[in-house]
Amino acid sequence: MNIELLNTGSELMLGRVLNTHQQWLCRRLADLGYVVTRQVAVPDTATDIQSAVREALSRADLVLVTGGLGPTSDDLTRDLIAQLLGKKLQRDDAVLDHIKELFAARNRPMPKNNEVQALVPEGALVLANPNGTAPGLAMKVASVVRGLAPGKSQTRKRLSPDPSARTQDAKWLVMLPGPPRELRPMFNAQVVPLLRHEFPLDAPFVCRTLRTGGIAESLVQEKIQPPLAALVAAGLDVGYCARVGQVDVRLSARGADGGEQVREAEAIVRKIFKAQIYGVDDEEIETVIVRLLTECKLTLAIAESCTGGCIAHRVTNVPGASAVFLGGFVTYSNEAKQKFLGVRAETLVAHGAVSEAVACEMAGGARLQTGADFAVAVTGIAGPDGGTADKPVGTVFIALAGASGTVVERRTNAYERETFKQLTAHQALEMLRRQVVSA
Amino acid sequence: MNIELLNTGSELMLGRVLNTHQQWLCRRLADLGYVVTRQVAVPDTATDIQSAVREALSRADLVLVTGGLGPTSDDLTRDLIAQLLGKKLQRDDAVLDHIKELFAARNRPMPKNNEVQALVPEGALVLANPNGTAPGLAMKVASVVRGLAPGKSQTRKRLSPDPSARTQDAKWLVMLPGPPRELRPMFNAQVVPLLRHEFPLDAPFVCRTLRTGGIAESLVQEKIQPPLAALVAAGLDVGYCARVGQVDVRLSARGADGGEQVREAEAIVRKIFKAQIYGVDDEEIETVIVRLLTECKLTLAIAESCTGGCIAHRVTNVPGASAVFLGGFVTYSNEAKQKFLGVRAETLVAHGAVSEAVACEMAGGARLQTGADFAVAVTGIAGPDGGTADKPVGTVFIALAGASGTVVERRTNAYERETFKQLTAHQALEMLRRQVVSA
Repeated sequence: MNIELLNTGSELMLGRVLNTHQQWLCRRLADLGYVVTRQVAVPDTATDIQSAVREALSRADLVLVTGGLGPTSDDLTRDLIAQLLGKKLQRDDAVLDHIKELFAARNRPMPKNNEVQALVPEGALVLANPNGTAPGLAMKVASVVRGLAPGKSQTRKRLSPDPSARTQDAKWLVMLPGPPRELRPMFNAQVVPLLRHEFPLDAPFVCRTLRTGGIAESLVQEKIQPPLAALVAAGLDVGYCARVGQVDVRLSARGADGGEQVREAEAIVRKIFKAQIYGVDDEEIETVIVRLLTECKLTLAIAESCTGGCIAHRVTNVPGASAVFLGGFVTYSNEAKQKFLGVRAETLVAHGAVSEAVACEMAGGARLQTGADFAVAVTGIAGPDGGTADKPVGTVFIALAGASGTVVERRTNAYERETFKQLTAHQALEMLRRQVVSA
Repeated sequence: MNIELLNTGSELMLGRVLNTHQQWLCRRLADLGYVVTRQVAVPDTATDIQSAVREALSRADLVLVTGGLGPTSDDLTRDLIAQLLGKKLQRDDAVLDHIKELFAARNRPMPKNNEVQALVPEGALVLANPNGTAPGLAMKVASVVRGLAPGKSQTRKRLSPDPSARTQDAKWLVMLPGPPRELRPMFNAQVVPLLRHEFPLDAPFVCRTLRTGGIAESLVQEKIQPPLAALVAAGLDVGYCARVGQVDVRLSARGADGGEQVREAEAIVRKIFKAQIYGVDDEEIETVIVRLLTECKLTLAIAESCTGGCIAHRVTNVPGASAVFLGGFVTYSNEAKQKFLGVRAETLVAHGAVSEAVACEMAGGARLQTGADFAVAVTGIAGPDGGTADKPVGTVFIALAGASGTVVERRTNAYERETFKQLTAHQALEMLRRQVVSA
């Protein structure tokens, strides 16, 4: 089965926004055992959208189209697809009522523009949008549109006249609204059941991702390729995905033996990398930390200089963080380090703010001030300026204070500012994770 | 001129990573006056990559391919494109030396796998990679490959035999490494000059984006469309891009009058939205804040409950933030609010932690503790749990303390946790911005 994803929007082509739909929809589909075979983004112009839809329908069984269902003049998807498929647009009163209610609930007048969002191509399934004004639309398209010609009159007669008639090889075209907070619940609640019903999987699919930290991508492959060779020959699929400081190993297989193959492969990889595996599937290190601390009834404080709140931000992205996270300090200045964390003036003078000694006093101070079981502290040089020969940009000291004392690590994370912050945050949380699991 | 972007990687199709290349490359090109007409992502399989490259070359003048130049077995781009274009791969000793040096500098042995990264298709330009092992590759392809057939023998004879021969309608195929920290400097330093040389713009291009906050997308259009109509008729292009709480208005035009058209349009839009425009082009609110505070020699402290460090993290993403940001507190618990910010127990008892009164005391306390000119404080319910009838999930109080007193706003940001945090951070910084510019 082929699935294609078509993201429409000139703002994508101009680089004004990140295409988060691609990752989210691809991952959701992969988790369900479906694979997106191609993703395409085009600007909001008639020829681009229509030719991309036509091409996608010629290859794929399911085409997901995102964006262009809004109320403004550059929202063309609905009209263009209806035109391409030779379908009339008809006002749907239930949809219009819903839009009016949404504006009423926000105490705002409904702009005239929004009325176009109640237009529905004839025969389309309306996917209700509880989180916004634009409904989604799902249309069954007879597979003979493979030869879809550009002309409207030509295409009209090729279409299945009744979308409720189930032909075995029909294709589906699903249009979803652009805002993620509208698209995601709509996909989960309405598209997934449709997908499962119309395109049932012919073989079970199993997938497991192991997330490693601190090992180079080529080394990861060099270590696991030979022991996994027999399983790969039997059908196991192994993929690698490297980010700064991390490599994900994705193990997947289809068929009756797939589950067993993936389990065996996981055991082999775990035996090789042991504690260097910090999580599975889409677990972030902060999710692992909040789960581990919650399970162990332990609490955490965080003192940040160069990461500037990044560690606290990531930890508090996890629902339930409030149960384990007692307090955070962002202390850029020496004064703040002294006043709020009790770092001593002598230590600052003797070693400088970016030093092992200051990191340790920051961690100790944060732990003491909050009464937390653990405190992590970082002090370093995020750049772009501030480096010296001894301590170049990217130098960072990460300290972890606990009941059994304080440990500290020096790292050189020579990346631009934001990558530096994220990598340092990952390392600090990973240091804590290893301490908690080994305790 | 048509530019297509082809992102290769099964990890993209599986949703394991975000395609940040699309946004970055599209924006860089748009800023330079070039527009990407189509972006495609395909998995790391021979048929998918080759058919996508063939199709892109049939439509576009420049095809940028990202990813698949790494050392592992799923890095196939180099081989497949060489095969498709009928080019032999040859070891480049300078590239191999560079790879060896990189490993030596990191004190790591070079895995045998990395040797494949020194293979270069005959006639290709090597784009040096100071930040990683994979060089980029640029290949001139005669436009007659428009009819590129799948067979190798067929394609070989269609190619321009000498890539240095400049035919007027030649196409370029540029392969870039996947890691952003390698791709971006390579694009800026080596691809941009190539692009300007090979594809000079035939008319000047001017583009300006005005970023608004707190106005619905349909209302933005309703207000500016009529006054901009004459300029649009004369060639001005107006685009909208909505995110939670924000709408960007992008004004662009080509040709000799383009600059004047965009300037006139900007004046019209500014007259309508005034202070609701917080920035231009790709300026984030935090960038504006750091710039304004630096210019005015003012300092900032931040006290966060429900945003958990998000505001501090965003402010400290801006280089130079250390000059204006004195300190941040992440005080989830009542104890932390009392101990570090001086929030009174009576206030917590009388009004609850999520209240106007507590937000004000947090801001006042943070200002007092740090001696900052301004302090922003937020307290609210990020969810998914913790809401009540009076204060549902999404309720937040944002306070701003300054020399002239403390102001507070109540908002209902009923979004999931991470959107809630980002939107609240934006609103808090926006409140500060308006205060600073009106002072």
